[in-house]
Amino acid sequence: MTLTSFDLDTMPRRYRTNFVNTLSGYKSANLVGTRSSDGRENLALFSSAVHLGADPALLALVSRPPVSDRHTLENIEATGCFTVNQVHADMVAAAHQCSARYARDVSEFDAVGLTPWYSDTLQAPYVAESRLRLGLVLRELVPVALNDTVIIIGEITEVFTDAEKVGEDGYVDIEGLEAVAVSGLDSYHRTQRVARLPYAKPGQSVQD
Amino acid sequence: MTLTSFDLDTMPRRYRTNFVNTLSGYKSANLVGTRSSDGRENLALFSSAVHLGADPALLALVSRPPVSDRHTLENIEATGCFTVNQVHADMVAAAHQCSARYARDVSEFDAVGLTPWYSDTLQAPYVAESRLRLGLVLRELVPVALNDTVIIIGEITEVFTDAEKVGEDGYVDIEGLEAVAVSGLDSYHRTQRVARLPYAKPGQSVQD
Repeated sequence: MTLTSFDLDTMPRRYRTNFVNTLSGYKSANLVGTRSSDGRENLALFSSAVHLGADPALLALVSRPPVSDRHTLENIEATGCFTVNQVHADMVAAAHQCSARYARDVSEFDAVGLTPWYSDTLQAPYVAESRLRLGLVLRELVPVALNDTVIIIGEITEVFTDAEKVGEDGYVDIEGLEAVAVSGLDSYHRTQRVARLPYAKPGQSVQD
Repeated sequence: MTLTSFDLDTMPRRYRTNFVNTLSGYKSANLVGTRSSDGRENLALFSSAVHLGADPALLALVSRPPVSDRHTLENIEATGCFTVNQVHADMVAAAHQCSARYARDVSEFDAVGLTPWYSDTLQAPYVAESRLRLGLVLRELVPVALNDTVIIIGEITEVFTDAEKVGEDGYVDIEGLEAVAVSGLDSYHRTQRVARLPYAKPGQSVQD
């Protein structure tokens, strides 16, 4: 099947959204916790969290265009911090429900039945049920003029997880934590490890 | 287990790299095909491809700092185009081997045993073995001063995939294509769908 720009441009809007959202491959599933300057808690599902670098420990999120209310982006701008909470299989329905357009005065925590939890240092709420929780401070907002999205770059300053799932080499076994992967807008997947492969070097095939 | 910035800063380098690379969750696995202005083919494994928007159809990649040779980035700057080829389970070892630091005059296609394939319109090579292949033109390079990475933003102009895997609503069944998810630097995972959930609305739980 071959599709060109012309085919993309003539797709019905909803079809196109579903189609293009699957093309990049599997995505991470994270709930982003924030609080407004007057203390209202917000929780939003993001499938765009991406590793940007290990030192400093940077993570990026894509926020959609601020044409309608973007509570997460507004709260991050106002408070300078946010949390990123990994979604595991038992949390999928509640996490997905957070993508509904709740009014500003509704806390998604209450609406979907998840529990806010605070560390000693960060004013943004974590999700108590999550098994891998990151606290971040805002480092940069990068506006993307091409489609009016905003790339939110945060530095990880706190990590809460299960020590038993952190290997001797630092690898966190997110499959052991039952983290899910996302495809498209609405499909959630458990995983099964195929392999961990050694550091690749020229002339030394990992296939051997 | 609680880790702070202090703990991150005192981790051994390799441990820290493994650790932080797992924190964002599952990542996509794509081989990026490019060609230099003098015709040398290059293939590189990226786990940072992220959906940026459906209309225009934008995809972003993170390129590491250009301190050493970054053939992919150089080729994209020189030619203005690249391909993104989804990695499936049977391709994992060959794809991972592409992350070895081959010299500029070595084609990773030859080195790892994958097959270059060209469309009628794009001068960058596709991976014939991939079951979901995207052709992109460069739209913007966004330098990230915080860690000297570069965010490469491309617009999808061609898509090659199996028509049987594209649903009536436009959703591409990447699990059916056996696409893999990545965690950390070196772990590859098959997936098993938990659920596709309906569009979430306030007051109407998807859990019901």
